[in-house]
Amino acid sequence: MISKTPKPPYYAVIFTSIREDQDKGYSEMAEKMEALVKSQTGYLGHESARNGVGITVSYWKSLEDIKAWKRNQDHLAAQTQGRENWYQSYKVRICKVETDYDFER
Amino acid sequence: MISKTPKPPYYAVIFTSIREDQDKGYSEMAEKMEALVKSQTGYLGHESARNGVGITVSYWKSLEDIKAWKRNQDHLAAQTQGRENWYQSYKVRICKVETDYDFER
Repeated sequence: MISKTPKPPYYAVIFTSIREDQDKGYSEMAEKMEALVKSQTGYLGHESARNGVGITVSYWKSLEDIKAWKRNQDHLAAQTQGRENWYQSYKVRICKVETDYDFER
Repeated sequence: MISKTPKPPYYAVIFTSIREDQDKGYSEMAEKMEALVKSQTGYLGHESARNGVGITVSYWKSLEDIKAWKRNQDHLAAQTQGRENWYQSYKVRICKVETDYDFER
């Protein structure tokens, strides 16, 4: 789904990743994190797709909200498992969304 | 692939889309645009994934480079076909990448 976000400015976290082959609890944790992130202060939505590379973009009201989510205890545990088990590599980019526009048929 | 981008600040265009079912020349044009975008001034890289929703993020040196790519004649023709034939809906978000970090096993 395409996230319905408010008028800019707001913030985006672009998380691009290459997975390891084996699941090792990834799918279960991904579901848990997806439920948890939605309850975070300042969360505005997220979009996710994977074929080969995976791209997840989450949208936030402020940089402080992004920092708080990064420090969330359950999320920190997931991040550790991510580096140990789930990802070959990833890159996180934190961005200010300055303008947006859309099209709908 | 995860794009190797320079140190921030730089710019990102997040293009999130829902495709129509039929190809109608989309795949051919996507290949053409992929080749063309790489030759544009200020282009730094792009990442793309689709399952259900499609997410393409392209990276740029400046907002002016993004505007010039949007106005490129061949790209304009592709944009028109996109609205007429290929997309049910899409959203474009133009962002300033303020910080980034990565992980590699």
